[in-house]
Amino acid sequence: MTASTSQNWSADTSAALRVGPGFRLADLDPSSTPGYSGGKSHGQKDLAAGVIRLDQLQERLYAESRSEATRAGVLLVLQAMDSAGKGGIIRHVVGSVDPQGVALTAFKKPTTEELANDFLWRVERRVPEPGFIGVFDRSHYEDVLIGRVRSLAPAEEIERRYGAINDFEKRLVDAGTRVIKVMLHISSDEQKERLGERLDRPDKYWKYNPGDVDERELWPAYMEAYQIAFERTSTEAAPWHVVPANRKWYARLAVQALLLDALEEIDPQWPEATFDVEAEQKRLAAT
Amino acid sequence: MTASTSQNWSADTSAALRVGPGFRLADLDPSSTPGYSGGKSHGQKDLAAGVIRLDQLQERLYAESRSEATRAGVLLVLQAMDSAGKGGIIRHVVGSVDPQGVALTAFKKPTTEELANDFLWRVERRVPEPGFIGVFDRSHYEDVLIGRVRSLAPAEEIERRYGAINDFEKRLVDAGTRVIKVMLHISSDEQKERLGERLDRPDKYWKYNPGDVDERELWPAYMEAYQIAFERTSTEAAPWHVVPANRKWYARLAVQALLLDALEEIDPQWPEATFDVEAEQKRLAAT
Repeated sequence: MTASTSQNWSADTSAALRVGPGFRLADLDPSSTPGYSGGKSHGQKDLAAGVIRLDQLQERLYAESRSEATRAGVLLVLQAMDSAGKGGIIRHVVGSVDPQGVALTAFKKPTTEELANDFLWRVERRVPEPGFIGVFDRSHYEDVLIGRVRSLAPAEEIERRYGAINDFEKRLVDAGTRVIKVMLHISSDEQKERLGERLDRPDKYWKYNPGDVDERELWPAYMEAYQIAFERTSTEAAPWHVVPANRKWYARLAVQALLLDALEEIDPQWPEATFDVEAEQKRLAAT
Repeated sequence: MTASTSQNWSADTSAALRVGPGFRLADLDPSSTPGYSGGKSHGQKDLAAGVIRLDQLQERLYAESRSEATRAGVLLVLQAMDSAGKGGIIRHVVGSVDPQGVALTAFKKPTTEELANDFLWRVERRVPEPGFIGVFDRSHYEDVLIGRVRSLAPAEEIERRYGAINDFEKRLVDAGTRVIKVMLHISSDEQKERLGERLDRPDKYWKYNPGDVDERELWPAYMEAYQIAFERTSTEAAPWHVVPANRKWYARLAVQALLLDALEEIDPQWPEATFDVEAEQKRLAAT
């Protein structure tokens, strides 16, 4: 995040959250707010300011792509344990963007047809077009996370997937898509509280699934699977970012900042007219 | 619209805008505000209040569908001449809804593959799932609008389509989808002004297409095609609504009101727990 948006970001957000060599998930405090010096009220103010900036950049990105002046696009990949706040990010960060420029895909348990194909098949079909902000709510990483933890595929197939993912993402990046991979990181205690709330409130029952506790019981195995995924797939082309998410306000602000960083790097411009403006003005006047 | 949302709606919005027997598009003033007694500032206040109500209803609809307690869903079909404000409706009305509950499709000029199939083929594939608010930005009606005006298909094929559309929409409605068909109606003068603005501002060039003037020159033929479409396809199951759209604030408010009406009619409820709440609380506590 540049100072243009807020003085409360003490450093480059992407750098503060990026998974580099030697990163240990176990050492990251899920209640911390890396790179951000402000508190909740600053965060909310900065989030509101970011909405306006995001809106401007997104419209320019979309506009530029319509004239075929660019192949640039963005893909936000969201992964997390249950209740970590993916839904809140989509609602409050992605939801602030014009829906005409967003392509959201929620990947569920694979269908029979999807299982009959390579694990990337259903994902490739949902890669965003140029000019769009694509959002994956869960993704191909499920196939090396729950896939690994629950041995849903042979070990050698899981191994193969890390390389296949890197090749796939490299191809996207080479074609002009900024790939922003985010894991929302909550603590096991925080998850317990959040799942408990879903069981306490009848208007939250629908968000609860008994399977959530089954997965929760495998917490250490999931953390290990994430750690391995980071080591194998946090590439230069498409690095991972781990966003501490015990504080919802911070997680939203951080993901918005990552989106803003990517868009500012693209630096989209209003495209030139692809027609003769004066001639068109005359044609219009004559109608 | 019920009084629950605003005193400024003097009557049932849906009824005020519905295309009934004897409706003449040519007689409707595109600057009027049918059913609404307030001015722009009231309209903006009511729109903001509607956002909150829409949010609540949408979440309940989505929640109920997740438990398979309902097959209800909504499909908003938007048709209009260029620059009438479809984009603004999607951005400001649809965009206020949680994107996780919205399925937006912008139908463009048909591809070769789409043309090789029946005109409803591409549309059927984009029918919203239960629990979703589907939005069609242009739709199967293009095939009896530009299709008719520009003779893109033989006359007898165009004729056949009206009946095929009615059958298709009846099927959707019988399956639980509320179909809200909206034409945003601007005057020819208003369009001229709006297209002119796109030619005056470099940050709007990308929204302009020389083809817009070609279509504009066929204005009377389009109005006739709309009139015929209304007469042939404004059915009891899926009536048309014509929303005067010279005043953007009114058009947005009216479309929001039509969505609210449909959702209030569905009256979605938080679903019962599909699991034993107490047993799950114990399981969670034990983790």
